[in-house]
Amino acid sequence: MRAFIFDLDGTLVDTVYAHVLALQQALAEAGLEVPGWLVHRRIGMSGGLSARALAREIGRSLSAAEQERLQQRHGEIYQALLPVRRPLPGARELVGWLRENGVPFGIATSGRHPDIDASLGVLGLPADVIVVSRGDVLRAKPEPDLFLACQERMGVRREEVYVVGDAVWDLLAARRAGMLSVGLLSGGYGVDELLQAGAFRVYRDPQELLDSLDELGIPLQG
Amino acid sequence: MRAFIFDLDGTLVDTVYAHVLALQQALAEAGLEVPGWLVHRRIGMSGGLSARALAREIGRSLSAAEQERLQQRHGEIYQALLPVRRPLPGARELVGWLRENGVPFGIATSGRHPDIDASLGVLGLPADVIVVSRGDVLRAKPEPDLFLACQERMGVRREEVYVVGDAVWDLLAARRAGMLSVGLLSGGYGVDELLQAGAFRVYRDPQELLDSLDELGIPLQG
Repeated sequence: MRAFIFDLDGTLVDTVYAHVLALQQALAEAGLEVPGWLVHRRIGMSGGLSARALAREIGRSLSAAEQERLQQRHGEIYQALLPVRRPLPGARELVGWLRENGVPFGIATSGRHPDIDASLGVLGLPADVIVVSRGDVLRAKPEPDLFLACQERMGVRREEVYVVGDAVWDLLAARRAGMLSVGLLSGGYGVDELLQAGAFRVYRDPQELLDSLDELGIPLQG
Repeated sequence: MRAFIFDLDGTLVDTVYAHVLALQQALAEAGLEVPGWLVHRRIGMSGGLSARALAREIGRSLSAAEQERLQQRHGEIYQALLPVRRPLPGARELVGWLRENGVPFGIATSGRHPDIDASLGVLGLPADVIVVSRGDVLRAKPEPDLFLACQERMGVRREEVYVVGDAVWDLLAARRAGMLSVGLLSGGYGVDELLQAGAFRVYRDPQELLDSLDELGIPLQG
C-alpha cells in the first residue's frame, strides 16, 4: 500500500510568491533588508527558524518579541497581497482521485491556523482529511516531526509514505523521517535543487503527479 | 581587456518577486490563470514573448490590444507592490568599482522607460552609463539584439564581454551573441539551471561577483 503526505504552500496552492514578498516586507519593517531570492529559499521552513536564518545571513539577531511581530505582519501583508488563493493545476483533481480510489493522504504544513484555512478551503478536501500544522508539533521542517505526526494519525507505516513538497525543506525532512519524497517545481525551485535534496521523483505540479501515479506504484485505471 | 554588460532586474536590483506577482495578477485580470513559478521562469524575456508563451501554456492566445493592456497593468501593479526598489547586495559597490578601475560596462534590459528609471536611479550609476532598453531594439531576450547593441555602443569586441544575468534568457542570449556569461542566483533560479543555460561562472549576487573579479581575469588590488 502507498500513502501520500502533502505540503500545502507551493505544493497544492499557488501561494509561494506572495509569501516571499510578504515576508520580505515584514522583515524590512523590522529593519532587516533581505533579498527576495534568499527569502524564497527559506519559505516552508518553520517561521522561527527561517527568521533566525535570515537574520543571521545579514548579521544580526531577532528578539522573541520581534519574531512574534514579524509573524503577525507576515500574515497581515500576505492576506492583503493575496486575498484569493488558487489551487495549483491538478491539485483538486489529485486529492479527489486519491479519495475516490481509497489511497490514504494527509497534509502537513509549517503554516498555522487561521492562516492556512483559506488555502485548505479552495482544495475541496473531504471533511475528515488529516491536517497537521505548525501548532501540532514542537518543531517544524526541516525537522521530521510534522511528517511523523501526520503518518501516525493516518495509521500507515513510514515505508508506505511519499511526501510531496516543493521546497528543499520538505525533502530533507522526509529523508529524516525515513520516507520517500516527490518534488514539485510549482514552488519555484529548480529540478536539480530538488533532486539533490533527495527527491525520488520530480514533477511540474500536482497535475503531472496525478498523470504519473503509476510510476509511483499506484495503478491508474483506463 | 574585459567588459561587462549587466541585466537589470534580479541582477542589480531586487525586483523579480514583485514582477512575478504583478505580472501574474495582470494575467489573471485578463482571464489567464498562470501559476507563479511559470511566470517566474518567463520574467526577463521580452514582455510580448513571455505573454505569448504563458498564454500558449494555458491554451489560448492574446490579441495585440490585450497584450498592450497586460503590459500597462503589469507596470501599474508592480509600481503599487514595490514603490521602493532596492539594489541587490554589492550592486552599487560593483558598478562603483568598475567605474573607478576603468573597466567598461553597460546595462541591457528587457524593461522599458519609464518603468526602469527608478531601478537605474538607486544604483548610483555615472551619468554617462550606456543603457540599452526594450525600446532600442526590435527583439528582446532571448534574442541577442540587446547585448549586441550594448556592446556596439560601448565600443568593445564581443569576445571581451561578460554578460551578467540572473535568468536563463540572459545566458541563452549571451551565447547567441557570442559572449561569455556570468549567472547570479539573486533572481531566484537554481545553480544548475544557470549552468545548463551556459553560464561560465555562477555567483550568489553582485557582491560575490565583485569579490571574485580576479577569477574572471580582472586583477583586484590589495
